[in-house]
Amino acid sequence: MGPVIGTAGGDERIGDEGYVVARHEGVTVVLADSATGLLYGLFHLVRLGEEAFGAARPAEHHRPAARLRMLDHWDNVDVHPVMGQVERGYAGGSIFWRDGALRDDLTRVRAYGRLLAACGVNAVTVNNVNVHATETLLLTDRLRDVAAIADRLRPYGVRVHLSVNFAAPVALGGTATADPLDEDVRAWWAAVTARVYEAIPDFGGYVVKADSEGQPGPHAYGRDHADGANLLAEALAPFGGVVHWRAFVYNHRQDWRDRSTDRARAAYDHFTPLDGRFRDNVILQVKHGPIDFQVREPVSPVIAAMPRTRVAVELQVTQEYTGQQRHVCYLAPMWSEVLGFRPWGPAGPGVAHVVAGDVADGAAGGGLVGVSNVGDDPYWTGHPLAQANLYAFGRLAWAPSSDPAAILDEWIGLTFPAAGGNDATGGDDGDGGRLREALHEIMDDSCGTYERYTVPLGVGFMVRPGHHYGPDVDGYEYTPWGTYHFADRDGVGVDRTRATGTGFTGQYPPPWSEVYESLARCPDELLLFFHHVPYGHVLHDGTTVIQHIYDTHFAGVEEVDRARLRWAELAGLVPDAPHARVRELFAEQLRCAEEWRDQVNAYFLRKSGVPDARGRRIP
Amino acid sequence: MGPVIGTAGGDERIGDEGYVVARHEGVTVVLADSATGLLYGLFHLVRLGEEAFGAARPAEHHRPAARLRMLDHWDNVDVHPVMGQVERGYAGGSIFWRDGALRDDLTRVRAYGRLLAACGVNAVTVNNVNVHATETLLLTDRLRDVAAIADRLRPYGVRVHLSVNFAAPVALGGTATADPLDEDVRAWWAAVTARVYEAIPDFGGYVVKADSEGQPGPHAYGRDHADGANLLAEALAPFGGVVHWRAFVYNHRQDWRDRSTDRARAAYDHFTPLDGRFRDNVILQVKHGPIDFQVREPVSPVIAAMPRTRVAVELQVTQEYTGQQRHVCYLAPMWSEVLGFRPWGPAGPGVAHVVAGDVADGAAGGGLVGVSNVGDDPYWTGHPLAQANLYAFGRLAWAPSSDPAAILDEWIGLTFPAAGGNDATGGDDGDGGRLREALHEIMDDSCGTYERYTVPLGVGFMVRPGHHYGPDVDGYEYTPWGTYHFADRDGVGVDRTRATGTGFTGQYPPPWSEVYESLARCPDELLLFFHHVPYGHVLHDGTTVIQHIYDTHFAGVEEVDRARLRWAELAGLVPDAPHARVRELFAEQLRCAEEWRDQVNAYFLRKSGVPDARGRRIP
Repeated sequence: MGPVIGTAGGDERIGDEGYVVARHEGVTVVLADSATGLLYGLFHLVRLGEEAFGAARPAEHHRPAARLRMLDHWDNVDVHPVMGQVERGYAGGSIFWRDGALRDDLTRVRAYGRLLAACGVNAVTVNNVNVHATETLLLTDRLRDVAAIADRLRPYGVRVHLSVNFAAPVALGGTATADPLDEDVRAWWAAVTARVYEAIPDFGGYVVKADSEGQPGPHAYGRDHADGANLLAEALAPFGGVVHWRAFVYNHRQDWRDRSTDRARAAYDHFTPLDGRFRDNVILQVKHGPIDFQVREPVSPVIAAMPRTRVAVELQVTQEYTGQQRHVCYLAPMWSEVLGFRPWGPAGPGVAHVVAGDVADGAAGGGLVGVSNVGDDPYWTGHPLAQANLYAFGRLAWAPSSDPAAILDEWIGLTFPAAGGNDATGGDDGDGGRLREALHEIMDDSCGTYERYTVPLGVGFMVRPGHHYGPDVDGYEYTPWGTYHFADRDGVGVDRTRATGTGFTGQYPPPWSEVYESLARCPDELLLFFHHVPYGHVLHDGTTVIQHIYDTHFAGVEEVDRARLRWAELAGLVPDAPHARVRELFAEQLRCAEEWRDQVNAYFLRKSGVPDARGRRIP
Repeated sequence: MGPVIGTAGGDERIGDEGYVVARHEGVTVVLADSATGLLYGLFHLVRLGEEAFGAARPAEHHRPAARLRMLDHWDNVDVHPVMGQVERGYAGGSIFWRDGALRDDLTRVRAYGRLLAACGVNAVTVNNVNVHATETLLLTDRLRDVAAIADRLRPYGVRVHLSVNFAAPVALGGTATADPLDEDVRAWWAAVTARVYEAIPDFGGYVVKADSEGQPGPHAYGRDHADGANLLAEALAPFGGVVHWRAFVYNHRQDWRDRSTDRARAAYDHFTPLDGRFRDNVILQVKHGPIDFQVREPVSPVIAAMPRTRVAVELQVTQEYTGQQRHVCYLAPMWSEVLGFRPWGPAGPGVAHVVAGDVADGAAGGGLVGVSNVGDDPYWTGHPLAQANLYAFGRLAWAPSSDPAAILDEWIGLTFPAAGGNDATGGDDGDGGRLREALHEIMDDSCGTYERYTVPLGVGFMVRPGHHYGPDVDGYEYTPWGTYHFADRDGVGVDRTRATGTGFTGQYPPPWSEVYESLARCPDELLLFFHHVPYGHVLHDGTTVIQHIYDTHFAGVEEVDRARLRWAELAGLVPDAPHARVRELFAEQLRCAEEWRDQVNAYFLRKSGVPDARGRRIP
């Protein structure tokens, strides 16, 4: 017998987006308070597969940990001369925009809404946070384009947000200033926002990158970020909208000669003095690490430092620094680590609690934000296996304590029919089992593999400037971007201690302030993020830093090659077209991983003069 | 009494472009066989100034050393998405083309013709050697545009040449192949070329970059460069046209791990086996150094290695690697050194003799080619002082043994009325003398200054990849471009010896093959081009390599600062607008020179660990 599905009817306990699933006496029941809740319940049944209709199940109540689970699209309306249609996009063009206009056919947008609902994502920003001239008009003249997208996504419980230009009132000719304390400016935003809500009654709100990397902001008027954010929040409040105000603010014209300035400190230094000044519909959107989406960073100290501010954590689903969707890199384990990090020590709440608003005496949570990895590519994400990151983002936003391997397992079952669906009884043997096992081998630790063949011990940014793909150890070393490793013939790493360095460790509460400060206690994987050490420094596993660099780089490439061969064996179990696509991408991943290995190893051999203890060839 | 000017009337001894100047009994006489010769004679009088009408002068016969004195414009018709309107251009847009079409107003082209005649240049290529789709059409559909330019330049004795796409017959749909031995292809080129000469009877010929950096060429058909060049030469021969075939051919997808491959060897290895196979209207156009217009390179060994081939030497007037017309860098001393270099030792002929066809048993000369530094900037060359390079190029092509300081002196007199013209009796005292003296101080050794604050001891390519401006010591170190310095903690430089290196030294005839091979005899300024040495290696002046790096970088910056202050003192002596432009550019030059100094010094300090003996601050 099929499932019985229906709304619970007025029972507030299930919650706006929650649902209850049960199977009792041969009947599967899904209850919810809202259509969206019901939809989520339906997708839950899909995940369960046959199992939903097997043995009796006690009632399970599901609801999302975080209210806001948002994907930001860095999509441009006009093709940007350098950044293209999608900034940092690796999956073709935008699903929304094409050559300066809304796409004629929005069928794909509707399908995207369904995909998002299946993952649990409930909000989307439809344009790049770097808001150029044409995109500024989305707020006014081109608002109907945004409304058209909202119409397609609404049935799937997904609300639309808009990235706005802080200087829009001036840029659009409405006022002479964009000063957030100016009455005309306030009136302009109020009027414009009211018109937005006329067109899109369930509009989500604004996303703003202000006073960052050249974008306009309140500083031009002698105002601060709270003034700026509150201006927009005031305009949105009557309609229930929110402002996502990005904390990605730093000096991108730093003097590389000056070792006292530390980009890692910037967000904390800028924002923590403002804690308590933001309106309650302002969400401070904080990147998960203090620098910029490197494969290994500590968790941003800002997350634990603003108890009276709603904080959202921003993750990068698009693989700017993690292989640009040409490399397999399943990011859920990294995100899971971030969400599980407990800034106040093991007894305190974790990052997931902060973003869920689940901290005693803390502000409401700001939820989780991901930078989307989706484009108009037939596989949505360029690399077919990168779809797993999209799925995992939504699932972790819904249930942050989920096990990344279990999420991957769900995704495999939903994606590859040959894996036998998600029925625990199916697919474990024979071809289905082989496929499932192989995909776990290829993907489970692929982020660890990526880390091994790229940048060692948390030091970050050894990529080619500009496009950020492939190695260039010194590429950012003598630039104004604040991203250095300070390697010399004796050692490598950034001294961020209070004792002798930039003092960044002091931005953490105990115990982490002490753990990171201590050379002995600092976790190996973050050693070079926090300390400058000689190449002979011995890690906790007994290896020296230099030997660790060599070993991990050889190991990382071997792992890629094993994964590549493992994938080749899956011919026939996976449809031909995606199999061929991934096979081609593996050839590129292997080439690039070898390039990383050889450049990083050659660089450090030339600098340190220490030969590989195992005598392998280093160019 | 004014000058008497007239043609010599049938007296062949003066030559096509030559002239005779004399002053006898109060009459100044200019004689020539042709209108162009007369024009050159007239400009000679302008250079002489008042002196032309003073004391009696015996008859002087002037004629150009080289028949072909050509400027190549790397101008695109369509604005290239990366390279812009003028590839490697630093003086605004093209004077010929704008936004995909010929400019409406060609007044500037006419003025350019006059400028070229005043310098002695008699040929111009009107489009980029990288020939894209629209530019391919200049040969056919857009030929009238080329003819319009030719009409403007003809009165000044300047012939127009065209860069062509070797695959043009296929690209333009004329034939199914571009195979140089195919009869249809030969017929296509013959027909197309005949039509070119119908439109432009004095058309100069074709310039071709083939099988180089991705451009098409004869290799695709299993043919060699001689086959390719002869194909075009055959089509041009009936009309007296020539093919400039560029020797800039190398593997730009080299593996940086492979130290046996040497880009410096490439042109010689590709072309010397073909010596004797080129038709006599083929000119092999060879860059002056074996790599690519670095501020210090040895002279290309190809120049001395092809006695049965007409060779032209290509210089880069546009300052791609020498400050991009934001830095003062008077290039004539470098060019003079190249032209004066005697490949077979002091008793043999020099490079100037080779390009003039003045070598016993050698081929006719191919002349001198410069890549133009001119654009639509009001000062023609962006940096007002870069005009001196344009002038010096023409003057050296006419008379290669000229003294660069004397050429500069001429240019100062012609350019700055305040310097008192070129009358030897004027301008030596007072303001005029001050201006002249200051400009010599600023410019005479500015190329040496540039070399000092940039790349040490001939090793080359420490620039930012892509745009090539400013330092990036490792920017090209791990790339496929074949441009490496191999610095490690112990030493730096490229071993190009026969004994232990790439064997490049063997491409020179004696004595240079021996001089460059020998660590003891190799000139210091080319040490790292030919040898990999420890940082402690002692140069001929007693300094170590590492200390030389520090010293020259500090000195170079100090020299820029002195030149900057010297220029500031000239306010009032130079018109305000160019004075302000140069003052602003000096601020940028100083900033950039300091960046070079600090990056290069920091890089080598970090690598070598050797402190500056004079204790100066290195970041």
